[in-house]
Amino acid sequence: MTATPVEHAAMLRALDIARRGPRGVNPQVGAVILSPDGRVLSEGWHRGAGTPHAEVDALSRVAAAQLRGATAVVTLEPCNHTGRTGPCAQALIDAGVARVLYALDDPGVASSGGAERMRTAGLDVEAGEGSEAARSLIAGWLAVQRLGRPHVTVKWAQSLDGRAAAADGTSQWITGPAARADVHRRRAQADAIVVGTGTVLADDPALSAREGDALLPHQPIPVVIGMRETPVDAAVRRHPHEPLFYPQHDLAVILADLRDRGVQRVFVEGGPTLASAFLAAGLADEVLAYLAPVLLGGPKLALTDIGVGSIGDARRLVVDEWLPLGDDLLAIAHLDAADETATRPQTTRNEGGS
Amino acid sequence: MTATPVEHAAMLRALDIARRGPRGVNPQVGAVILSPDGRVLSEGWHRGAGTPHAEVDALSRVAAAQLRGATAVVTLEPCNHTGRTGPCAQALIDAGVARVLYALDDPGVASSGGAERMRTAGLDVEAGEGSEAARSLIAGWLAVQRLGRPHVTVKWAQSLDGRAAAADGTSQWITGPAARADVHRRRAQADAIVVGTGTVLADDPALSAREGDALLPHQPIPVVIGMRETPVDAAVRRHPHEPLFYPQHDLAVILADLRDRGVQRVFVEGGPTLASAFLAAGLADEVLAYLAPVLLGGPKLALTDIGVGSIGDARRLVVDEWLPLGDDLLAIAHLDAADETATRPQTTRNEGGS
Repeated sequence: MTATPVEHAAMLRALDIARRGPRGVNPQVGAVILSPDGRVLSEGWHRGAGTPHAEVDALSRVAAAQLRGATAVVTLEPCNHTGRTGPCAQALIDAGVARVLYALDDPGVASSGGAERMRTAGLDVEAGEGSEAARSLIAGWLAVQRLGRPHVTVKWAQSLDGRAAAADGTSQWITGPAARADVHRRRAQADAIVVGTGTVLADDPALSAREGDALLPHQPIPVVIGMRETPVDAAVRRHPHEPLFYPQHDLAVILADLRDRGVQRVFVEGGPTLASAFLAAGLADEVLAYLAPVLLGGPKLALTDIGVGSIGDARRLVVDEWLPLGDDLLAIAHLDAADETATRPQTTRNEGGS
Repeated sequence: MTATPVEHAAMLRALDIARRGPRGVNPQVGAVILSPDGRVLSEGWHRGAGTPHAEVDALSRVAAAQLRGATAVVTLEPCNHTGRTGPCAQALIDAGVARVLYALDDPGVASSGGAERMRTAGLDVEAGEGSEAARSLIAGWLAVQRLGRPHVTVKWAQSLDGRAAAADGTSQWITGPAARADVHRRRAQADAIVVGTGTVLADDPALSAREGDALLPHQPIPVVIGMRETPVDAAVRRHPHEPLFYPQHDLAVILADLRDRGVQRVFVEGGPTLASAFLAAGLADEVLAYLAPVLLGGPKLALTDIGVGSIGDARRLVVDEWLPLGDDLLAIAHLDAADETATRPQTTRNEGGS
């Protein structure tokens, strides 16, 4: 059997209320409980690490007697993870729910297996309804599960010949207004925006996502990496979010900490040393190179050393799009998977009681 | 009055036979002489510096008596330049030609004015018929007149981040087969292909224009610039044309010599030092940058110093096309005219007897 029209509508509703939860360490999940005759008994969603999962939230809003034979519609496979409380799959079994419809399989090593547990207990379990919308909703979280760290975009602007600035360091307006507006839109899609102390000292960037002078609704957390002190009057200290300072150079450690803070998407803005360090460490997933139709020559390179000694070690890119922006051109690319050697540990979502 | 159908056909014929002449110091020109009743009396074309101009060639093939009241159809304004022989405009007047139809005005300072001279002498003179085809036919020669030197294309291949090679100098197959085939097609459109001795010693290039292993019909003259000796067994010495060696660094002097040898289009293939020198000297008209979707970092730059100290001195490009070639991207651009400071002397075509 596939989803009934009532269940289909319930899944759309579950996806909708899932969005009320925060993007963070845990995925955004929504749940709707239907009575055997198709009435909505309750709704629930996950409000972030440390709060109940969506199914448990929904179950808690219905009198136990009403749950016998009910159907649970959930945007993600109910977890199978035992922490301070039991797993959601067991909670649904214990409640007497007869049927569970969910959109996406749980990719976590420790948390998956909920569907199997419920089937074994005799529940009617079905997956896949609404999976595309659910995948899109939690794409950032899924990337973190796959990568074991936040997804990293490394962005830079360069002259056609690969320079970030002229010989004397001047660089204003290498790219045009369309390219700069595009950068702000993409900043707003990230959870954290990362720069090196060199860039803070040289350019004093605000690191906010703006449209004209107005702040965009979502602002990434500003992150400053490096040993040098950020001045007390630096623009980044007036950012809507308190900046994070990492006076060290271990990018893997920094990304792990950002992940634990719920950061799913990192936008590396430079400068050249930091951008090159992410590429050299194999910690760049996406590259955004804004090319301005200008030649500069000279020593101020947009990328420095990325650890490529010989042509066979070149970092191959797959260009997803060459996007014209005014007179400039944006190369949107990802690192060729064939080049990747990094292992990608699986992590699991925090269970509700953590 | 405009061109009659017979004159229109004669102009097409004149354009056609003009192509029989060589591309060189002088423009390719064709001429057709029509009798007053519209019969073709003769045809002529210019066979290169030191031979008669097309009009004189055509006039010489008709008995003097037949020329009274004839019409001359010519692809370029008859010259007004007195050298060892008188100007072509005077020759047409002297022959008793009644009407002259030509396609393009002569851009030369010393040679132009032929139309005015003939009008003053009472001839019926009309310009513009077939001008577009004539302009296309002698575009290279017109560029030389405008620039006072050959038209210069500077070509390089680079990683997205502006490198010509990896740190250890290896660079094979940065760009893919479609880009490499495109380079050979464009080489075949040039009259000379220029490299520095560093490239000869490092890469031993053949400098021929090939399709697969086959030589293309037109081969540019190989030109080697620099003080170092080209080995006796260098591939460039087996080129279909005898290479030209310039053991010096004055690019303006070299271009003037190439111009005097009839070279209209120069294709600068590198390496980085030579390409940068052409850009620094303001002697690049067109840029072809083949971008490969790969990152290299490191010290082997596709362009070195091009004389830009501050961002205000940046060499602005106008990109005519971002052309995808397989996985690569070719930027076809010309230098922004607003940046140009070089004076552009007018030269004149050699008159027949020189």
